[in-house]
Parts: sequence; C-alpha cells; structure tokens
Amino acid sequence: MIKDKVTFDIKEDRFRVTYLIYGEEAEARSKAWDICLEQTVEFPEELVPEGMIRDHIVGRIEAFEMQKQQCWQAVISYHADTTAFELTQLLNVVFGNISIKPNIRVEKLELCPSLLAAFKGPRFGREGIRKRLGIRPRPILATALKPMGLSSRALADLAYQFALGGIDIIKDDHGLTDQRYAPFEERAALCAEAVHKANRETGLNCIYVPNVTAPYDKLFDRAKLARRAGAGGLLISPGIVGLDAVRALADNDEIDLPIISHPAFQGSFVTGSFGISHHALFGQLARLAGADATIYPNYGGRFSFSKEECKSIVAGTSEEMGHIRPIFPSPGGGMTIDKVPDMLETYGKDVIFLIGGGLFKHGPDLVENSRYFSKMIDV
Amino acid sequence: MIKDKVTFDIKEDRFRVTYLIYGEEAEARSKAWDICLEQTVEFPEELVPEGMIRDHIVGRIEAFEMQKQQCWQAVISYHADTTAFELTQLLNVVFGNISIKPNIRVEKLELCPSLLAAFKGPRFGREGIRKRLGIRPRPILATALKPMGLSSRALADLAYQFALGGIDIIKDDHGLTDQRYAPFEERAALCAEAVHKANRETGLNCIYVPNVTAPYDKLFDRAKLARRAGAGGLLISPGIVGLDAVRALADNDEIDLPIISHPAFQGSFVTGSFGISHHALFGQLARLAGADATIYPNYGGRFSFSKEECKSIVAGTSEEMGHIRPIFPSPGGGMTIDKVPDMLETYGKDVIFLIGGGLFKHGPDLVENSRYFSKMIDV
Repeated sequence: MIKDKVTFDIKEDRFRVTYLIYGEEAEARSKAWDICLEQTVEFPEELVPEGMIRDHIVGRIEAFEMQKQQCWQAVISYHADTTAFELTQLLNVVFGNISIKPNIRVEKLELCPSLLAAFKGPRFGREGIRKRLGIRPRPILATALKPMGLSSRALADLAYQFALGGIDIIKDDHGLTDQRYAPFEERAALCAEAVHKANRETGLNCIYVPNVTAPYDKLFDRAKLARRAGAGGLLISPGIVGLDAVRALADNDEIDLPIISHPAFQGSFVTGSFGISHHALFGQLARLAGADATIYPNYGGRFSFSKEECKSIVAGTSEEMGHIRPIFPSPGGGMTIDKVPDMLETYGKDVIFLIGGGLFKHGPDLVENSRYFSKMIDV
Repeated sequence: MIKDKVTFDIKEDRFRVTYLIYGEEAEARSKAWDICLEQTVEFPEELVPEGMIRDHIVGRIEAFEMQKQQCWQAVISYHADTTAFELTQLLNVVFGNISIKPNIRVEKLELCPSLLAAFKGPRFGREGIRKRLGIRPRPILATALKPMGLSSRALADLAYQFALGGIDIIKDDHGLTDQRYAPFEERAALCAEAVHKANRETGLNCIYVPNVTAPYDKLFDRAKLARRAGAGGLLISPGIVGLDAVRALADNDEIDLPIISHPAFQGSFVTGSFGISHHALFGQLARLAGADATIYPNYGGRFSFSKEECKSIVAGTSEEMGHIRPIFPSPGGGMTIDKVPDMLETYGKDVIFLIGGGLFKHGPDLVENSRYFSKMIDV
C-alpha cells in the first residue's frame, strides 16, 4: 500500500530532548514511546515502515529514569533531519502534538552541531550589548515607558528623564504597539530623539527600545522604522508573533539591532507541571531564536516564578551552546529598593534589571529616582 | 512627573472577556481588578493618571459571580482602542501578561462591532468550502499524508489512492515541512498533480492541502508555491507561527486558498485549569484569525479533550460573530469505524472528519478503505 519506499542515505545525527513524564512507571514508559512516534511519524506503530523510517526517523528513548515520586525523566533523541533545520519545525518535533497530551514537560534541549550550525543565534549577546552601550561589567538597568494612554510626547518626556538619570535601556511597555494615543512611528521618533538628547547632556549611551510586536505584515516595517528613528534595540513578544519572528529579526543585516524578548502570552507553557521548563523556554529557546536579552518575571514579584526557576533561566542564557552567544537574563516585575541586595547576590553582574513601577513609586522626581537606582546597582 | 497628559476624545467602545478565576472569593476579586490593570496600564494603581487613562483605558469589571466552588467568573471589558485593532495586540490585552499568573483562564470573547470590523475573518468559511469542493450538506472527509520519511513520490501515490477512494481533503501531516525526504516544492507539485489526476478519473473535487508552517521569511513563499502547484488549501499551525500569520494568509488576495489550522504547540493553553478555553482558542480565535477549518483532537481519541470541550469548540465555529463567517470544526485523532455513528450524532453534517491512522489500518487497500469511510459518512 505504501509504494516507492525510497531510502535516503542517513547518517547518525541526532539531538536530544529531556522530558519529564508524570504518573506510574509503566504508563510513563508507554508515554515515552508514544512521544517517539507522535512527534515524528504520527503513525500506528505496527504500520511504521521497516528501514530508515523505523530506524532513524522515529524518536529513540536514550534514557529513562525516576526523577522523583511519580515523575520520570526520559531522554529522547530525534534525527536532525526531522526538523528540516527550521526553528518552526524544531519546535514542532520537540513539543508540537504532545503539547496536547497531559503530564508531559520539555525539560531541556541538547542540540547537535548540525542543528546549532543552522542558527546564527543572537547578533550581539552579552558582550555585544556591553560593547554597544559602553558598559563595563556591572548590572545593566532597564525600565519601561508607560502607562498606555499617554501621548508620544509624554512618553518621550519620561524617556528623557530616565535617560538623564542614568538608566541604560528604556523600552516601550510591551502593550504599546500602534494605539492612536501614541502611534508607533511618532512614538519611536520622539522617544529615540529624547534619549539622544539626554545622551548628549550626560555623555552616556542610553538606548530606546521600541516594541515591534506587530501584525505579521507590519513587523519588519516597524523594525525598519525604529532603526531609522534611531532606536537602539527592539522589544518583541515571541509568544504572540512566534519564536521564529525573533530569529528572522536577528538574522536581518539591515536591522542590526539588539533584541529583547518579552514573555507575554508564554506563561501557560510554564505554569503547570506540563508544558516547557523555564530553562528551555526563556533560556535555551529565546537564545537559540536570537534574543540578546530575555525578560521574565523575577521571583518574589507579582508573578509566580521561584528563585530556582529564575536561576534555571540564567543557566540557559549562558551554558555551552556551540557558537550561540550567551545572552542577558532580564528579571522584571515588582523590583523595589529593598530587593536590590538580594538580586545582586542572585544574579551577579551579567544581568539586565528591569524596573518599572518601582522607578515611578520611589519619589516624585523621576530623574532622581533613576539616579538612585543606578547608583545602587553600580557596585 | 508625568507631563503633557493629553486627553484624547474617547467614546465608549468596549469589548468583553470572560475569565475564570480560581481561589477564594476575596482573592479572586482582587485578581479580577489586577487583570484590569495588568492587561492595560501595567502600572501601580495609585499612580494611574486620573481622567481618560483611569476611566477608559484601565479594564473594567462588568460582572463577577461564582461559577462553582472556588471558581469565579469575571467579565472584564477593555476599550477597543487598547488593541490598536491588531490581532497581535488583541491577544496581548486578552491574555499577555496574565498568562504568567496562575489560576486565570480566558473563557470567552465578546468583541464589539469596531473590533470585528477590523478583521475580515475566514475567506471561505463553511459555505465557501462546500461551494469550492462542490459538496452538498454532508460531513466532509479529510486525511493526512504520512509518515515522515516517505519520498514526495510515495506521498503523492498515497494522495492519489485517497483521492481515488473519495476522500475530500488530503492534507500534509503537520510535521511535513521541507525535510530532505520530501522537500516542500517537490512534494507540493507531485501531490497536487496526483490529486488532480485522480479527480480527472473520478470527476470529484478532492483538494490537496500542503503544510505551510514555516520560518517567518518562507511562509508566504511556500503559500505561493502551493498555489502555483495547484494546491486547494493550506495547512498551518498558529501555535508555532503565531495566530496573526493565519490572518495575513487569509487576507492575501493573491493566495486566495482555504486555510486549515492545526493545534500543534497550542496544547499547553488548554491542558490546565488556567490558560485559554477550548471554545476561545480553537473556536473563536482560530475563526477570527481567518482559518476556514479548525483541527482539534476529538474526544475519546489518543488526546485529552472531553466531549463537552469539543462541543464548545463547535459552538465557537458558528456562533454569532458579526460578518465573520462560520468555519468547520475538524475533529481528528484516533477516528475508527466504530466511532462513526457517535461522531455523526455529535457533529451532524457541518464538520470535517479528519481520519489518519484509521484509514491505513482498516485494510490493505487504501482506495477501498477510503471508499468505505466515504460511504459511512455519506448518510
């Protein structure tokens, strides 16, 4: 019934994914094998053709062991060819259909050289951002322009005050896109100019980072507008536009700007015991896609991440990954002055601290607040 | 500190989102108010400027009631302007940051006329697909080309057999992209030709639907290649490329093909008690984005959806939604002959039954298997 079983010349070239599977051992073992089929041939086991397809294309259980009570760790390898060396299809092999099956979680990826070679990764990374901003080894301080509803001019004025106070990176709030209150083109131009003006006064290299999370056919236009307006980076939410949009932006020589990824709409992947681990999603995948910094909610803030989960993200930003550059973790959400010492201890110097509301709340003068925070960080 | 508080001329123009919030009442009420702030101004409540921002931009709790023990239903309205009338930013307002907060679930959307007017929705919808395929009111039968690893020629041969047997829609398996076993351009050409050949013999209007889930910068190229090759529709996984990629494809006059959306990588949104409901994700949002049919795992198959959840998706495909056309629900996954009567009873005539493995397993002759299933459905 299946004719013309062409067999291709296949060499061993496999990448590995570690999954956590919850439940009884027998059930978990059966699920591990199910993953091998579901993520590749999606075909009844007894009908999988002998030869190349069964031997190479079907996933392979490389290890299976207990992680804790009712939780099993399965390492499954896939042939690199199954991804077509596309980030989109890599995501599909790793977690496409099984995202719909309960009690399975992607814990980490170990990509093979052929697959890593298919991706350029971050254009700047930690070193590139430090160089571009002229910042010696110390934590970098970022903030966000908000609230939505302010005019472009009002937002630019905020940007000016923050930049004057020594904030390094001033990004749009991730909910600012092209609302009529502050349309993208106008906002990008005014805010970039305000930051340049402040830089001329301070001698610093603050950058303005507009949000280019946008409809499919407008994303690159906004990125180019941002570049022409004098923006120093781009903010994007891969949960909304897809991780590969980050890759496409990072690969684009014409745009050539650092990219900061935002976790909006990605939370459901990490909220339960299933989904994708913090390490893999906000660390490994954001980095592979080409983000130069990855924003995530800091522990102890108004979100739900634990300190361990945050540390696992940091590990993903810098662990060995071939030629793919290390990137900055950027914890945000609810940073206040009393947390600074603890955050310095947890994150060290290679971090972008994102402080939003705290910068507004500290006192009535935003320039002074910015100076205060800058000094606290600059240890 | 915030200067230049331009106030815009704002008219009441709000859309509503129903959330389920889990926990004690006081906590749930507080979370509802938190959603109003988090999804719009993302700003400390006490600092939200008086006037337009506080009165119109901040979300508004329209209703709050107990749904069941420890579960509260909150209806929150947002001003349409906050979305910039972009699907990407609409998603962000509905569930961007709060995706990261536990125990919140998007239950349903009620969009206002101004927002609906911003979207064309499905180009074909139920009626358009029936017309294009020349199919009178009866369930439509679809299958998938697989397993990965077959050559383009072998896949085309399968397509030919299915088409000869009377299957209406033959799609790529969602994991077929551009692997070297069956590169996209070659596969699309051979499979489309095989289906056309079968149509010439049967006099039927079977269509081939290749998978265009692809890297950001290749998606439209593949869609255009598919169109030129004679494909009759496009398959896409919005969980991987973003929902707005569906919208962009559907809006494109040059491509002008029915779109079938696949749920790969979206499962984590619906697996827990948080996330997005089946109704909103696979029904309302797929439809708003412009999919003409929405694939989801049928109840009782190898996935985890209940019959009620499947019915809620069906409701989302056809309920009142202004000018946005009703679309086909397309349950798949584990359909076998013994389930046909029950599925006919549940879904009626307005459905695309997606049958994969069952079509291979029924007997050795794929043409006969296809005929058998077609006749069972054609009641």
